[in-house]
Amino acid sequence: LTKHVVGVVGGGQLARMMTPPAIAMDIELRVLAETENSPSELAATMVGDFREESKVLEFSVGISVLTFDHEHVPLSILRSVETSGVSVQPTPQALSHAQNKLVMRRALQELGAPNPSWRAVSSAEELEDFIQSHGGVCIVKTPIGGYDGKGVRVVRNSSEVLDWLDKDLLESLGGELLVEEKVDFTRELAQLSARNQKGDFSAWPLVETRQVAGVCSEVIAPAPKTSEETLRKAQELAKLLAEGLGVTGVFAVELFETQGGQLLVNELAMRPHNSGHFTIEGSVTSQFEQHLRATLNLPLGSVQSRAKYAVMLNILGVSDSYDFVENYPAVMIQFPDVKIHNYGKSPRVGRKLGHLTVLGDDLEVALGQARSAREILLRVK
Amino acid sequence: LTKHVVGVVGGGQLARMMTPPAIAMDIELRVLAETENSPSELAATMVGDFREESKVLEFSVGISVLTFDHEHVPLSILRSVETSGVSVQPTPQALSHAQNKLVMRRALQELGAPNPSWRAVSSAEELEDFIQSHGGVCIVKTPIGGYDGKGVRVVRNSSEVLDWLDKDLLESLGGELLVEEKVDFTRELAQLSARNQKGDFSAWPLVETRQVAGVCSEVIAPAPKTSEETLRKAQELAKLLAEGLGVTGVFAVELFETQGGQLLVNELAMRPHNSGHFTIEGSVTSQFEQHLRATLNLPLGSVQSRAKYAVMLNILGVSDSYDFVENYPAVMIQFPDVKIHNYGKSPRVGRKLGHLTVLGDDLEVALGQARSAREILLRVK
Repeated sequence: LTKHVVGVVGGGQLARMMTPPAIAMDIELRVLAETENSPSELAATMVGDFREESKVLEFSVGISVLTFDHEHVPLSILRSVETSGVSVQPTPQALSHAQNKLVMRRALQELGAPNPSWRAVSSAEELEDFIQSHGGVCIVKTPIGGYDGKGVRVVRNSSEVLDWLDKDLLESLGGELLVEEKVDFTRELAQLSARNQKGDFSAWPLVETRQVAGVCSEVIAPAPKTSEETLRKAQELAKLLAEGLGVTGVFAVELFETQGGQLLVNELAMRPHNSGHFTIEGSVTSQFEQHLRATLNLPLGSVQSRAKYAVMLNILGVSDSYDFVENYPAVMIQFPDVKIHNYGKSPRVGRKLGHLTVLGDDLEVALGQARSAREILLRVK
Repeated sequence: LTKHVVGVVGGGQLARMMTPPAIAMDIELRVLAETENSPSELAATMVGDFREESKVLEFSVGISVLTFDHEHVPLSILRSVETSGVSVQPTPQALSHAQNKLVMRRALQELGAPNPSWRAVSSAEELEDFIQSHGGVCIVKTPIGGYDGKGVRVVRNSSEVLDWLDKDLLESLGGELLVEEKVDFTRELAQLSARNQKGDFSAWPLVETRQVAGVCSEVIAPAPKTSEETLRKAQELAKLLAEGLGVTGVFAVELFETQGGQLLVNELAMRPHNSGHFTIEGSVTSQFEQHLRATLNLPLGSVQSRAKYAVMLNILGVSDSYDFVENYPAVMIQFPDVKIHNYGKSPRVGRKLGHLTVLGDDLEVALGQARSAREILLRVK
């Protein structure tokens, strides 16, 4: 009998949220988690370090495809897995663009995709040059290892990244930092899509993402007050990149929208993405189901919306001891339409502990419900 | 930290489908399964016989509430669990009505609920009397142990149930068989609802169920061409019974609709029910999430529909060796809107192996898609 077995490296909330569609389709999900009691512990079949080649190879035995909860598995290890005869989706080649922001900028430039002004710098002098020619301010990024605002700094003087310019650290980062103009954007958007090995491509509607302190706080789907042209351009851009970079699985393109209505690529993610959590309730096919289908090279599911609007709010920890499950009764009695997602993590200030989703015909009503529900959930008793 | 722990006796597809909402709400689900490799193996924390008191008591240690995937746990065992201080929902008292069809008929009669004509018989003579006074035909049911058409016979002569009238077997069934008139119904309906210990009650829209050989084949939600009065009467009846019998958790009332438009109670189930699988995609709150909420005495979720119509078709095995996962590509490419649910059971002719659901504004389109998709899924290569 055929049995699809998907191996996921990383036991965070993304792996956790792949479990329900895996149950529905009877796909066996195996997770290589970093720790015991990970958010994905139900599917965790191995605990170990994803930077250990032997561990990842051991984990890959008997699976149909290896995929990811995060982008941090060294490419050399993934190539070894491929050599062992196991499919890796997205491929190491594609994933290199999500792992390294300089590799990404260069590839995007080659594909003619809209980048902010950028350059690679390896010294304080080069950085100062860029700052001078870009209005006295820039964004400096470590090419690898950053996420949720980590590895990113707004910089007006090279002294603010002296630590990153340290010879040894710089070498460990590949010898160069990425410098980008500080884009004067009006809002941030995200274009989520999926592609399988056969080349089938499917894109959800463009969404607006609202960040607080560099971390996603709210997602509105579809992005409100957006022209047909922008919606179309975003999907075309995602398709260009997915095909040009050879992406398989779910693919998120984070975008800036400028004053002039231009879209610029901010970041790429090659896995289910925070901007797509709304699809669990909001779409015929969730990003988690689609990622399983796409990585297994099955036909993609419909990305049609289940409602006019979907609103997704992240739940970030406000205390190191308080568990928001204590507020379930209060929020459930007042908001029977709110869908609560709790990742089962131990609470910590600022940590992504869960999210909630509301669908509706009226955006303001849905947003109001979601915000009030989050406020109640986060009340520390 | 608070942690809700729900223990489910029985590792079938109903327990399996409780897993996704348990993951979403971070409720720990523990399952006492009959066998290894049960449909609910992901949540199975113990394998053992639910008729063994010591096993069920051992399973109940440390859980918030004990509930069920089926109705067959002996009441004496459930009373022992209650005595040990663990909440059992539905209570043994309520559950007695779902376990024993004679207990149910008597209670319904007392509550003034619409029963078909019925009586308890303990001899061939009594049975012949009933047959004579009901047009020469009747339905004979064993009061306990029946499901999916098992334990139910259409009888024209008492000789057709000689085996059930055998003194020893009859005694094991409680000394009596249930005899009911063969209702001349126009269609079968099911009213699904939920109730928690606080008494909160919530009912999904009435659905039409279509049986083939005594097993549910299709469910249409809401029941098409149904008067407001019938919809209202069905919900009022469910509320009367839920309150009158003290039901907690999800509650299904299977109904006959007669030529004259009357509703008669056919069967009761006190757990998620085949007629409610459409709620996974079709309702803001699925029956599986609602069952967890209700048994934990949390406020109930909204039962609003996500689409005008939902169609659910069961997938019954057509071969003992063929696994319908082989037809995933064929059905997925043609029907990207169809949601496939595969219970992970080994195939067997006639066995419920899964179901599929389609939502839509046009009932005929949705039904057509679902039927074609099932046909493709069941093609044996």
